[in-house]
Amino acid sequence: MEKKLSVRSWDIKVGRLEVMLDDEDARDMGLHPKDRVKMFANGKPVVAIVSISKNLVRKGEIGVTGDVSEVCKLNDGDVVSVIPAEKPKSVEYIRKKMNGEALEEREYEAIVRDVITNHLSEIELTAFVSALYINEMTMDETASLTRQIARTGEMLELKKKPVFDKHSIGGVPGNKITLLIVPIVAAAGLTIPKTSSRAITSASGTADTMEVLAPVNFNAGEIENIVNKTDGIICWGGGVNLAPADDIFIQVEYPLAIDPHNLAICSVMAKKFAVGADFVAIDLPMGSETKVRNMGEAKRFARDFIELGERIGINVECAVTYGDKPIGRAVGPALEAREGLIALEGRGPGSLIEKSTDIAGMILEAGGVARKGAGKSVAMEYLESGKAVQKMREIIEAQGGDPNVGAKDIAVGEFSEKIYSSDRGYVTHISNKAIVKVARAAGSPKDKGAGILLHVSKGAKVKRGDVLYEIYSESEYKLDQAIKLAKQLSPVVLEGMLLKRIPDFTVFENE
Amino acid sequence: MEKKLSVRSWDIKVGRLEVMLDDEDARDMGLHPKDRVKMFANGKPVVAIVSISKNLVRKGEIGVTGDVSEVCKLNDGDVVSVIPAEKPKSVEYIRKKMNGEALEEREYEAIVRDVITNHLSEIELTAFVSALYINEMTMDETASLTRQIARTGEMLELKKKPVFDKHSIGGVPGNKITLLIVPIVAAAGLTIPKTSSRAITSASGTADTMEVLAPVNFNAGEIENIVNKTDGIICWGGGVNLAPADDIFIQVEYPLAIDPHNLAICSVMAKKFAVGADFVAIDLPMGSETKVRNMGEAKRFARDFIELGERIGINVECAVTYGDKPIGRAVGPALEAREGLIALEGRGPGSLIEKSTDIAGMILEAGGVARKGAGKSVAMEYLESGKAVQKMREIIEAQGGDPNVGAKDIAVGEFSEKIYSSDRGYVTHISNKAIVKVARAAGSPKDKGAGILLHVSKGAKVKRGDVLYEIYSESEYKLDQAIKLAKQLSPVVLEGMLLKRIPDFTVFENE
Repeated sequence: MEKKLSVRSWDIKVGRLEVMLDDEDARDMGLHPKDRVKMFANGKPVVAIVSISKNLVRKGEIGVTGDVSEVCKLNDGDVVSVIPAEKPKSVEYIRKKMNGEALEEREYEAIVRDVITNHLSEIELTAFVSALYINEMTMDETASLTRQIARTGEMLELKKKPVFDKHSIGGVPGNKITLLIVPIVAAAGLTIPKTSSRAITSASGTADTMEVLAPVNFNAGEIENIVNKTDGIICWGGGVNLAPADDIFIQVEYPLAIDPHNLAICSVMAKKFAVGADFVAIDLPMGSETKVRNMGEAKRFARDFIELGERIGINVECAVTYGDKPIGRAVGPALEAREGLIALEGRGPGSLIEKSTDIAGMILEAGGVARKGAGKSVAMEYLESGKAVQKMREIIEAQGGDPNVGAKDIAVGEFSEKIYSSDRGYVTHISNKAIVKVARAAGSPKDKGAGILLHVSKGAKVKRGDVLYEIYSESEYKLDQAIKLAKQLSPVVLEGMLLKRIPDFTVFENE
Repeated sequence: MEKKLSVRSWDIKVGRLEVMLDDEDARDMGLHPKDRVKMFANGKPVVAIVSISKNLVRKGEIGVTGDVSEVCKLNDGDVVSVIPAEKPKSVEYIRKKMNGEALEEREYEAIVRDVITNHLSEIELTAFVSALYINEMTMDETASLTRQIARTGEMLELKKKPVFDKHSIGGVPGNKITLLIVPIVAAAGLTIPKTSSRAITSASGTADTMEVLAPVNFNAGEIENIVNKTDGIICWGGGVNLAPADDIFIQVEYPLAIDPHNLAICSVMAKKFAVGADFVAIDLPMGSETKVRNMGEAKRFARDFIELGERIGINVECAVTYGDKPIGRAVGPALEAREGLIALEGRGPGSLIEKSTDIAGMILEAGGVARKGAGKSVAMEYLESGKAVQKMREIIEAQGGDPNVGAKDIAVGEFSEKIYSSDRGYVTHISNKAIVKVARAAGSPKDKGAGILLHVSKGAKVKRGDVLYEIYSESEYKLDQAIKLAKQLSPVVLEGMLLKRIPDFTVFENE
């Protein structure tokens, strides 16, 4: 049954094509909540999900959000023709996956297309992610989904091949190794178009850190131009529409605090597939507070990354690294950018240089610019010769930053507080999670100058009154909040120190 | 971190406790979409789910829907104190179920409590229902969930025990057997508080049909009063808050078109537990277009209903009935009510009387008013002696209807059309789904007088020009729509007739 309805448009977006009908109109048309209608407006038919209301729209009206009015070019008062429509095929495929069957690539294609065009309801999207979590995907399915997630977004076309890339599985604060790896690899003449994320729950994503040195928001064409010129880039993945479905799946995974294993693998590799990578070095930081808890898990990740890579034509190598403390001493965008520059100049800290040259070395070997086993020392040469820092300055300039920036030019928070040891002993533990919480309370990553500078490392012997770490902030108030939190959480733990245990750091609740 | 925010209230309800924060405020507080906040307003803390917007609320404001402002008694401009809050424990239990573990009763209790108080997001709710569908529940879990769904709603307290009840698994149009069973059982002095549903996708629910004869919307106290007086009632389950979580689960099941087996069993039995039933007769109509397709499925349903009943203290008996055609000849509220009254007066149709007395007989035997094997004939005596129709009039009067109503007083749609056979032969099939679609197109269940009256039954020999069925409607336009649809669907099929097959009756799309 067809109805002519008058458009009432709302200036909001919900991330889905949804329309609202009056209760009586819906009943006349035999429609229930979450059913679909097909709307004919300006000649272009659009299928949308139905909400039903008794008082938000009048009989004869159809309420549309910005998501719909944008696609259909609708204005208030426009008359559209509306008929009930079937659910998209993708919903049937979702149910098939819920029933424990493996899906074919064309079925994943249909689902991913409906996901990124906002054709699925939150219920359908959640059912899909839940089914992938509970029933898991075979490796064939994972490869299908990876390709489809990549192909429904933009794909980079770089001139100089092969293309190299790296990825660190998250969970370790202060991880600025990309700031060293990209210029080392590019200095050796290999192509490395590194797209990075901003912090979601961490103190600084690589994109946040790089942004201290240069703009990071580029579209696909701009990325291609920069990389064609300098061989490398460190930009924000969100600026270019790579693997867009992935971000939508995360919106379901985050609130459920689930991280379906094969979807996590797929998420990383879809972005690598989209930049056209031929080789990817994957860093698996292992630790009690990272995503990879033990060697068994590390092996599982490595095996699955490599196997998926084989299926989609990407050569993958993995490195299990030590993840039980922050990398280097700085945590927070400006502090990390400064430490990265210092390290590029060869002035330490050692742990950062070690880890960066390990991973860069894997890429140099894969790219044939270092013989097997010599990658690390070749990487070190690029660092020590100043070629890496020179390449970094080229990249910074190509991205629109100041190529002459020095470590001392980087502004860190003007308010700071040193935290002293109240006891003597050895540092037995530095909590990644607590460091991140304190840095975020101080303002990271939004306030670039906020963060933490560790003065001690794990295993160090400290005396009473020694500085353990320093908190930086751009506001006195936030500094104060961070200090309070630091006292509760004690991120740096000395042997024999009395630990105040707060379950899972539920500090906000107790304030 | 605590913030004082100014309330901006919206006059809409979304069925969840949700608030909206400005982007910057959310970032300051470290909040992401679907995180929780605890609000202190008028002394009563409330936990709500966070949405984040850049333009719907201003910095310093908190947007609240009617769901929240009702619970917290909030008005525009009120200042509330807001802090980040943890997810409820129930989300952890949902994840546990997603991980394939069995949940304990206290865990189901927490989930169901958060479901009915609107504390779960649509994502969490969907993940729960998906997990129950994919991982299934053990029978112990099903019993736990059944008790908790019942106990989180109202529970009837009837004076005269034991309490008897019946339930028909859906899928068969024209199923008005409740209109006969309740008065037969009550006439025999047994207590039968029958709560029924309205049609969702069918042509008439028992509540819609009974409403032609008397009001059906009563609260728990009113139901108790009526049943204490007459021993029986036929009312709308939605008028009393029985097993409210069940309706919320259905809002997820319907759009996914899933019907988790143990949740379906649980849904029926929770309502029976809530009315205090000691014995339940369950009618399982088996047919190609009903929920129970074959004897294997029927046995599984029967076994599970009986086993669940044992665990929650309800004695269950099941009857597998013939479900491959409508029951009786009338489909649609008024037509069914009229046919029910005629049958109560002993004037047929035979198939309706047969089925009703079969099920009523099971209850009479269980109640000890008929000896084993004699239930059906005792039920028939109540019908033939006029005691059943007299009891029905008592019940109609107690519910506020006219006890003297006769079959001829019932108004059916003033517009009608007879559909004639264009051929001769035997009736080989009457499609339940097609009958329902045509009846709904004619206006059922909203227009009480709309529906279908069959003139032939399965197996009948018809000549060309014989009336097959008659469509009734309250509007000429809807009658016209229904006739068109009837021509497409051919609900009554003759042997050798040419069938125009339309896959799954997707008629709206093709109009």
